[in-house]
Amino acid sequence: MSKVKLFSYWRSSCSYRVRIALNLKAIPHEYVTINLVKDGGEQKKDHFLKINPFGFIPSLEVNGDNNQKSIIFESLAIIDYLENINPEPSLYPKDLIDRANAIAITESINSGIQPLQNLFVLAEIENLGGNKDQWAKQLITKKFKSLENIMTKTAGKYCIGDTITIADVFLVPQVYNAYRYGVDMSQYPTIERVNKLLEEHEAFKAAHPSVQPDAPKQ
Amino acid sequence: MSKVKLFSYWRSSCSYRVRIALNLKAIPHEYVTINLVKDGGEQKKDHFLKINPFGFIPSLEVNGDNNQKSIIFESLAIIDYLENINPEPSLYPKDLIDRANAIAITESINSGIQPLQNLFVLAEIENLGGNKDQWAKQLITKKFKSLENIMTKTAGKYCIGDTITIADVFLVPQVYNAYRYGVDMSQYPTIERVNKLLEEHEAFKAAHPSVQPDAPKQ
Repeated sequence: MSKVKLFSYWRSSCSYRVRIALNLKAIPHEYVTINLVKDGGEQKKDHFLKINPFGFIPSLEVNGDNNQKSIIFESLAIIDYLENINPEPSLYPKDLIDRANAIAITESINSGIQPLQNLFVLAEIENLGGNKDQWAKQLITKKFKSLENIMTKTAGKYCIGDTITIADVFLVPQVYNAYRYGVDMSQYPTIERVNKLLEEHEAFKAAHPSVQPDAPKQ
Repeated sequence: MSKVKLFSYWRSSCSYRVRIALNLKAIPHEYVTINLVKDGGEQKKDHFLKINPFGFIPSLEVNGDNNQKSIIFESLAIIDYLENINPEPSLYPKDLIDRANAIAITESINSGIQPLQNLFVLAEIENLGGNKDQWAKQLITKKFKSLENIMTKTAGKYCIGDTITIADVFLVPQVYNAYRYGVDMSQYPTIERVNKLLEEHEAFKAAHPSVQPDAPKQ
């Protein structure tokens, strides 16, 4: 397998997910920085639109059949692709009910929380005259109640029992955002406990925004 | 396989997705109505919380190992489960790049559009003093530009070439919402063309909100 190329921004929680999955599966990859905030966003500039005409970050450039380059985008599509080209360790539980619960937690973050606090929506909230930081904090606070409730039923050491799954890959970047917006995480003891353990895992540590090449120097 | 039980609301676009998938795979199922708007939402009442303690609609009740009942929720988790118990016809392309594109379109709807116009977010927009119908119309209009752009590259008769995939299952309910909010669909000729063809398909017709048992009588 030839090396894949990840187009990523250090603080993007969707890029963070893909970095974790690449690390868990130990897939060699090149890291290319795309600055989502400088000058209105590098993802909208010609040099990146030649690579991904849709301007999505994260994107993964891969060598497909006939050594032709293809670009894959949307974090879940990228992670599904990585699972297919490199099935072990699998991010999906074998038991179908555990698998359904892992995907349900993934989606409660992916479609239930993250979209409500991404850059695009926060700009729209400001246009409406709202306070974007307060909006993000308030929505994460509400939605984490439901997630905590689910995880009290499914979690062992991790989101689903004692094995790392796709749910954990999505959880940690969302909790990172929760801390950014000042959410009081002590309200969610299960989420907090699982997140702390995951943060100590090498694959998660190496994917942390603060250690990416494009993170601002402390 | 024993009959599964779908807890659905006629107008919920996430329930609509699951109805399409059940029909495409010809999986026998019982339809149970949960009214999301009456008296603050039947999904929050005790009799439903005994079935799904998290109060999510759609939910699918299935008989797992040892004939024990399990509840599955989040439309993508339900559809993934259906794909696993009933793999044919598959909703996922075999080619990995086509598969990634199908998931990318699915996610650009599932996490990129639908969450911004669901009941929970529209109520929050009203709390902010915004006009919820205008918000929904404006965001779908913006996001469909990007989706149209993607589909001009991937579509044949359907979202990905000439075979129905999970992307189509997600597309049709989202276009239904776009019409509800008065989005001018003539701006998106590829989306409009694919949607029209899908709407004529028996599996999609039978899943349409207007023909569900809980739809208001015309």
